[in-house]
Amino acid sequence: MNPEFIDSLVIKNKTKIVYLIMDGIGGLPSGNSHLTELETARTPHLDALAQRSVCGLLDPVGYGVTPGSGPAHFSLFGYDPIKTSVGRGLLSAAGIDFSMTERDLFMRVNLATINADGIVTDRRAGRIDTDSNRRICEKMQAKIDLGTNVEFFMAPEKEHRALIALRGDDLSDELTDSDPEAAGKAPLTPRALNPKAQRTAQIIQNLLQQTRTILSDEERANMILLRGFARYQKFNTLPERFGLTPLAIAEYPMYRGIARLLGMDIHPQTGSIEGEIAALGTSFDNYDFFFVHIKPTDSLGEDGNFDAKVKIIEEVDSHLPAITGLNPDVLVVTGDHSTPAVMCGHSWHPVPVILASQTCRPDRVERFGERDCIGGGLSRIPTMHLMGLALAHAGKLSKYGA
Amino acid sequence: MNPEFIDSLVIKNKTKIVYLIMDGIGGLPSGNSHLTELETARTPHLDALAQRSVCGLLDPVGYGVTPGSGPAHFSLFGYDPIKTSVGRGLLSAAGIDFSMTERDLFMRVNLATINADGIVTDRRAGRIDTDSNRRICEKMQAKIDLGTNVEFFMAPEKEHRALIALRGDDLSDELTDSDPEAAGKAPLTPRALNPKAQRTAQIIQNLLQQTRTILSDEERANMILLRGFARYQKFNTLPERFGLTPLAIAEYPMYRGIARLLGMDIHPQTGSIEGEIAALGTSFDNYDFFFVHIKPTDSLGEDGNFDAKVKIIEEVDSHLPAITGLNPDVLVVTGDHSTPAVMCGHSWHPVPVILASQTCRPDRVERFGERDCIGGGLSRIPTMHLMGLALAHAGKLSKYGA
Repeated sequence: MNPEFIDSLVIKNKTKIVYLIMDGIGGLPSGNSHLTELETARTPHLDALAQRSVCGLLDPVGYGVTPGSGPAHFSLFGYDPIKTSVGRGLLSAAGIDFSMTERDLFMRVNLATINADGIVTDRRAGRIDTDSNRRICEKMQAKIDLGTNVEFFMAPEKEHRALIALRGDDLSDELTDSDPEAAGKAPLTPRALNPKAQRTAQIIQNLLQQTRTILSDEERANMILLRGFARYQKFNTLPERFGLTPLAIAEYPMYRGIARLLGMDIHPQTGSIEGEIAALGTSFDNYDFFFVHIKPTDSLGEDGNFDAKVKIIEEVDSHLPAITGLNPDVLVVTGDHSTPAVMCGHSWHPVPVILASQTCRPDRVERFGERDCIGGGLSRIPTMHLMGLALAHAGKLSKYGA
Repeated sequence: MNPEFIDSLVIKNKTKIVYLIMDGIGGLPSGNSHLTELETARTPHLDALAQRSVCGLLDPVGYGVTPGSGPAHFSLFGYDPIKTSVGRGLLSAAGIDFSMTERDLFMRVNLATINADGIVTDRRAGRIDTDSNRRICEKMQAKIDLGTNVEFFMAPEKEHRALIALRGDDLSDELTDSDPEAAGKAPLTPRALNPKAQRTAQIIQNLLQQTRTILSDEERANMILLRGFARYQKFNTLPERFGLTPLAIAEYPMYRGIARLLGMDIHPQTGSIEGEIAALGTSFDNYDFFFVHIKPTDSLGEDGNFDAKVKIIEEVDSHLPAITGLNPDVLVVTGDHSTPAVMCGHSWHPVPVILASQTCRPDRVERFGERDCIGGGLSRIPTMHLMGLALAHAGKLSKYGA
């Protein structure tokens, strides 16, 4: 079933859906206990919720496919993650609240260090701090000149990451990256993937030449690496598809960006998990769909820090009563993908999920864990169908056919 | 997900994948014990492997669909078995190492017996021996004359089975079979399924008329039955799709043929299961993908010989330490389809599977059997996605999206 099939069935009502997304929640066993991070964590509230709900396992993209955060989140919100291909540049632009227009071309920037021979010695410029990043963006913004037909914008993200946007007519994103993706190599020359992109390729090459001169006096960030060229793209939003009035509560730019692309309001950053849960409570009357994004489960998994990931899961568990106390009609607890600490990165393993509502058909899952969820009533399904299930359990989908 | 989606994610490395395929492994209970062949077999090594791996059930083609060996194997290697429609004739040609060209039309031949009224009395000419088959092929090869524009080739397979290839311009495989598929009927006249195939239909009718005369002095094999017309077809091979250097270790022509069509090197026949496992060991350094095909599980299932199928499974189990001792990065144990002895044929039942690797997420399966695999962490998935999982667990797939 195409996940857009449900759009024609949507009916509006006042029920409320909460998505509690622990990024990278799925894991793998480590050490002697043979338990995953989630199985190791003491999660009395999540376990109690699992007992009175339906559980299962979600495949973000497909069997064996390790998703990036972009496709994994599109899937959570009911978008086919393969058909919904979004360039990294566009996600960056959305994530820093860049005021987009349809004439824009976006690209993801790494500030980097090159040596006298032009070889990249550090793809992240020593993970340069955000303030230095901002200073460099301002310097570039003042000096880059691409002529009268193309406007240039550069804005910092965190640490070594930044956004560049070009605004002009007929700009193309069909270009190869300049980022060589490894130190010890020279930056690549972006090339047009088809004739229509030739002019844009020349503009980018001009931009890179000017950058080299402008940043030549910098000690660390003396070059930029470009990737993820992406033109502005209009999505069918959650309000348009499902008639929802959605709010995103997320700390990290990219997730805020995805939420904005999908038509969600964005809550101001709160600085903590506790703050995010509190924000859910104070906003609860004003929206009917809530995307609460917990980042550290993923970051700590990527760091290979099994024990700290366990602790974060336990912290989230401790806040669960504040969520269930709001009595949402549907509460979904899951992740966008797995980030096993033993792999120090995203993985293809399916993601455990709890879906709690009055209309859940009970299964026999007693604990929220990967092994337990194998036997869940949802069984193992593509993540992109989760949204339809949430809407159904919230009474927001009508009958199909007579 | 289209199984070809993973092709764009492939990265090359030195990890090794072993596919141990017990043809027709899946079964059904027989007699009082209510256990399947696999559940009856004493398989301590497979059970131990199941305990430290992830298990599940595979659907070769789709719910309720009983596959032939061709589609079932294409599925195992990551090809959509419905989109990848391969004529039986092409599989036969590949299986006997026929030197194919793009101008070739292949067909599967049964040597058969007809009576004075032209009615088929035995579709297999009394399961005539291979030597007699060879003599008849040579006789046909010497006498058939299809004119200057069409070359004729005929070559024996085992017992009553043979291959015919026609070589010429604009030959079509859009023809109906001549094999009536049952004794007591006359051979059918192959007909063109569209106007472009008219000329080929006439050539085939001419061939059949000549055959009747040429073989009229034969006691048993006095006619041929044709089916599975297929033109030459170029596949995207495993080396092309996945960057693999694959080796097939298989005794039977058709599996060797499929492997060859998919770009595998073919190990010389060894004559025994023990020989096949030994071949895996001696070839292990030179390849990174190994297809080890065990035929008797299927043949004995087709014979309805429950106990002998059990014994073969136990024999394979006894060789498992020789495989695990090689420390492949990924070891998959499964079948192409089920062949329950009580049904004396292939069936649509899903096939139990073990996938063992360092990155397996454990489930609670303690034994390798159909019932146990229901609760496996892979759950029940289409066979065509097994290859993506094997590649992922071997670290051969990169992340999708940022």
